[in-house]
Amino acid sequence: MSGAETQVQADLQRLLPLLDAELVRPFQGGEALRLAEAVRYSLEAGGKRVRPVLCLLAAEAVGGSAAQALPGALALEYVHTYSLIHDDLPAMDDDDLRRGRPTNHKVFGEGHAILAGDALLTEAFGVLAASDLDPIRRAEALTLLAEGAGWRGMAGGQALDLEGEQIKTYDLDHLRLIHRLKTGALLRCSLEIGAVLGGASGAERQALRAYGEAIGLAFQIQDDILDATATDAALGKRTGKDAGRGKITYPSLLGLEGARTALAEATETALCQLAILPNRNSLAAWARYLAQRAK
Amino acid sequence: MSGAETQVQADLQRLLPLLDAELVRPFQGGEALRLAEAVRYSLEAGGKRVRPVLCLLAAEAVGGSAAQALPGALALEYVHTYSLIHDDLPAMDDDDLRRGRPTNHKVFGEGHAILAGDALLTEAFGVLAASDLDPIRRAEALTLLAEGAGWRGMAGGQALDLEGEQIKTYDLDHLRLIHRLKTGALLRCSLEIGAVLGGASGAERQALRAYGEAIGLAFQIQDDILDATATDAALGKRTGKDAGRGKITYPSLLGLEGARTALAEATETALCQLAILPNRNSLAAWARYLAQRAK
Repeated sequence: MSGAETQVQADLQRLLPLLDAELVRPFQGGEALRLAEAVRYSLEAGGKRVRPVLCLLAAEAVGGSAAQALPGALALEYVHTYSLIHDDLPAMDDDDLRRGRPTNHKVFGEGHAILAGDALLTEAFGVLAASDLDPIRRAEALTLLAEGAGWRGMAGGQALDLEGEQIKTYDLDHLRLIHRLKTGALLRCSLEIGAVLGGASGAERQALRAYGEAIGLAFQIQDDILDATATDAALGKRTGKDAGRGKITYPSLLGLEGARTALAEATETALCQLAILPNRNSLAAWARYLAQRAK
Repeated sequence: MSGAETQVQADLQRLLPLLDAELVRPFQGGEALRLAEAVRYSLEAGGKRVRPVLCLLAAEAVGGSAAQALPGALALEYVHTYSLIHDDLPAMDDDDLRRGRPTNHKVFGEGHAILAGDALLTEAFGVLAASDLDPIRRAEALTLLAEGAGWRGMAGGQALDLEGEQIKTYDLDHLRLIHRLKTGALLRCSLEIGAVLGGASGAERQALRAYGEAIGLAFQIQDDILDATATDAALGKRTGKDAGRGKITYPSLLGLEGARTALAEATETALCQLAILPNRNSLAAWARYLAQRAK
């Protein structure tokens, strides 16, 4: 195990229990029992929790505590989970498997899957709004979340990605735009929300935003490389489907080695941003770890 | 024209320009052009704007200004519009017409319709979070919106409604539960958000919440009556479909006259709540007007 991976595992062991204790709490009881069940099904599917953990680490990196950033971390996991449920729908990416289990709509039907996503997106804002955080920081975090998730961010990226499947003629700039919105915007705001809730200075917040931007790019390149090289069993989802559909990816545009070089560059960019932060070890390890996964 | 209708028309003439000047502003420019177009298509379809107008009137009813409540009113119209787009999808109510025009997914495809709803829901929270309202009131309004729209409110009601189409054996209590969540929760929070943003006392806020609850019930009974009695051309959507599907409605459970009596009772309940408010004329007229529409 590399030093980066050891640090990442230690962070996960320390932070995942904080998240797991709260994650499904808002979706207990109530009257719409089957909808709540659908929501919990996807929340409990055991994702990597990258966004909420990065949010908590960003708060710690500027001298704040993970507890301060917890409502933001929950919100980010709700938004991420909603986006997976909606992206898997037949009208979008049409996936049957996610994290090794049938996708939400395969189990609960399309109607409930759409509503489960809607409920998660709504609760993301609810959990932040109803938290007892400082009201100014809370409003900033809510604004960042709306920007990252909305039509100028993640939702817009998914729309462009859908359109791209029809046009199939776009270049590296367009691919970067799609990923900056689809994957990058939410990762970037994960870091920035953690920064805000942890009490970052303006310069620290800016650095974490740039780190998030670079990590987001790295994450997407890595995802494309894994899709092109791994097996279904290793990833728990259908692989090779990008190539099968003629979908444009970093490996398809740059070749596998070119994509690996781009990944290394994005990782370097992320690491450079960390210099001004008081506690940078964990975030540095995460950047290196994400790059390693694609080797 | 009745006195109530005259008052309602005067309120609309005064308040709709405030809304119309801001409604599509957040969805201009940007990069996901087709998604923004899909959002604007549904926002500009010319709905009745009942929820945002009631929100503005609630602020005025407690001595605040419409301008104070405007971000809340926009948020409510975004949430309402998102819910119509998603409810019209084939996996939900499967409607081809809405407000006399093809539904969003008929024009832009299902994927973009889902994302347009997602983008509107996200922006609802964004427009409130980024407003320059008092931070405490802003957080309260955001919390109310999440409760009203989420799985314990509107989204949960839609899920129960979907499930009801399969079971078809439920009684008046279950019908009331569905409507309290599906229609009532968002109307109730329209009033309560207006109250909070307008600076209501605790008692005023409670009264407006109860008024919203009663209006929500009245609104749904009225909708069922109109569906059972009106023509496609008058409503701009497919009518009689509730009966055609054997869907359970107030008229189907209580008969048409029984439904009209229930509507009159709900209206009386709403009017009773207004006694303690400094400016109650408009909200009284709106309650009477909604009841008249179903005659």
